[in-house]
Amino acid sequence: MTVEVHDSEVDIVIAALQPNLTPFFEAWKPFFSRFHVIVVKDPELAAELQIPSGFDVKVYTKSDIQGLLGATSINFSGHSCRYFGYLVSRKKYVISIDDNCLPAKDPAGMTVDAVTQHMVNLKTPATPFFFNTLYDPYRKGADFVRGYPFSLREGVECMLSCGLWLHNADYDPMTHVVKRNQRNTNYVDAVMTVPLGAMLPVSGINVAFNREVLGPVMFPGLRIRKEGNHRWDTLEDIWNGLCAKIVCDSLGYGMKTGLPYVMRSDAEAGKALESLKDWEGVKLMDDVLPFFQSVKLSRNGVTVDGCVKELAGIVREKLAPKNPIFAKAADAMEEWTKLWKSHGAQSA
Amino acid sequence: MTVEVHDSEVDIVIAALQPNLTPFFEAWKPFFSRFHVIVVKDPELAAELQIPSGFDVKVYTKSDIQGLLGATSINFSGHSCRYFGYLVSRKKYVISIDDNCLPAKDPAGMTVDAVTQHMVNLKTPATPFFFNTLYDPYRKGADFVRGYPFSLREGVECMLSCGLWLHNADYDPMTHVVKRNQRNTNYVDAVMTVPLGAMLPVSGINVAFNREVLGPVMFPGLRIRKEGNHRWDTLEDIWNGLCAKIVCDSLGYGMKTGLPYVMRSDAEAGKALESLKDWEGVKLMDDVLPFFQSVKLSRNGVTVDGCVKELAGIVREKLAPKNPIFAKAADAMEEWTKLWKSHGAQSA
Repeated sequence: MTVEVHDSEVDIVIAALQPNLTPFFEAWKPFFSRFHVIVVKDPELAAELQIPSGFDVKVYTKSDIQGLLGATSINFSGHSCRYFGYLVSRKKYVISIDDNCLPAKDPAGMTVDAVTQHMVNLKTPATPFFFNTLYDPYRKGADFVRGYPFSLREGVECMLSCGLWLHNADYDPMTHVVKRNQRNTNYVDAVMTVPLGAMLPVSGINVAFNREVLGPVMFPGLRIRKEGNHRWDTLEDIWNGLCAKIVCDSLGYGMKTGLPYVMRSDAEAGKALESLKDWEGVKLMDDVLPFFQSVKLSRNGVTVDGCVKELAGIVREKLAPKNPIFAKAADAMEEWTKLWKSHGAQSA
Repeated sequence: MTVEVHDSEVDIVIAALQPNLTPFFEAWKPFFSRFHVIVVKDPELAAELQIPSGFDVKVYTKSDIQGLLGATSINFSGHSCRYFGYLVSRKKYVISIDDNCLPAKDPAGMTVDAVTQHMVNLKTPATPFFFNTLYDPYRKGADFVRGYPFSLREGVECMLSCGLWLHNADYDPMTHVVKRNQRNTNYVDAVMTVPLGAMLPVSGINVAFNREVLGPVMFPGLRIRKEGNHRWDTLEDIWNGLCAKIVCDSLGYGMKTGLPYVMRSDAEAGKALESLKDWEGVKLMDDVLPFFQSVKLSRNGVTVDGCVKELAGIVREKLAPKNPIFAKAADAMEEWTKLWKSHGAQSA
């Protein structure tokens, strides 16, 4: 499926967790250069950023965050700094890729244009109500298989596109330690809608979404006790994705996963082992998932903002008694809806 | 993942809708020859079957069906004759492939061993409770991604494996007519568990299942008014798959889709156009799917047999008033549980 992608409707948001972004930007030049790029510097990062010329870049730093938001209970350090970029973007769509990822190659050796693939995912319909065994029915050469009801073939709007990663897969620290030599080499040439009611772990590594619609639910809500600059330390994106899926399911929107791939640089297994010392993410997910599997939003939450407020209330009621970090997550979710109203809910 | 496949645990079931099975058997020889093959001849087919030597084959004909079952309300003509093979098999697993399909080649040019791939799908766990973005977590080189709860990483037993088709895709007659020159060339190298609660159109073209467990739900239940020998004329497999998914969801079993592919011979678009004259499958699915999306079995149906009886009752209550063919489907489902008890529920 071919879609038109206008420069004026997409921002690229990059969280800078390391100072030298030159190799990153050079590699992405063919795909990023026509778009406005928002770089949000990790507030914990002291060194000056190196960004090559030839891009329409705006860098936001700790002082920009403090200046715009003042006192806020939301912690924008580490990977969470990218969410500030979502807030200051004025575009309909946002694409965000981690700064340790480069363009991947497909099995034919062609460099993957992750921007265009994300936009195809977002601009073609999603089909959450029935699974199409031939994957994306709108893709060239594909269609709906026999038995697919005709009344569902229009699909619904896709609000989030979760891309994948070759080489260093997105594992938790235990898996990184145990499988330190394993690399993901399997390029699966498919995009699919995640069915209604099915939960998935959305990774923030390589993600795109409709910011105008989904903005109020794209927050850094859950922060585990000790977070570093490694993906394996975080659950903010997983929590964010589960919240977004609940909201999309509730409002009849779709979410896709699969293409595009990015090439992700090596993990450092030794550091993964270190971070296990303080890591409580394992236990958390075993509480979190049953919660999300059973949560049902009322029919009153007809906006994303309304759904988030309701969901935050249910988190506070049901999960917060189990662990105080869920109370903080609920605080952050409510705070985010206010920040979004004041700062995010504006388009170009 | 490597699994051991014993000759004594698998039957291949082939519905013979055409007399000359020589090219079919010759092509499948490397993969079928070590297994017992059950050929069920379409009761409507008059000509004698041609099957090459070198196989452990047993052929069942109209007189075998009548002799074993006597008077039955179930119609075993056309594609539905394969279900008789499920009944007379004495093995734990059954693999069934349409007689117009040959082994496919993977992108590296290797001929696909569909038997082994189906058995890998069935013998490795399924993960219906949370979607793994890297697809099958048990596959070599893959694992569960970050955020996947550890308590769910054991998975559950996989009861059905739905394979796919290259070249001639499994479309309804309208799509065959409209896209008469389109061929499926996209080999997606993935197997995935269809999530809990998500419905899918299981095609009977290339399918495998745990016969010992799932047998009571592997019936030809729904027959549309005018069925021929073309897949596009039938909904029996789609209905069967939806019933099987409901039962698997209710009992905590898994169902997978994806690999293996088979190569399917061309459709005849002219004949597809012909069959549209009497085809009511389109309207039916628009009633059927909402029914399956909302049906919930009680916790009393703790066996597949119990679930089927309960489901048949709900079909009779909710769907039969809309169209008499649903009453016939409910009859066939109940009849099948009796046939299975008398003839199917025996192992080697």
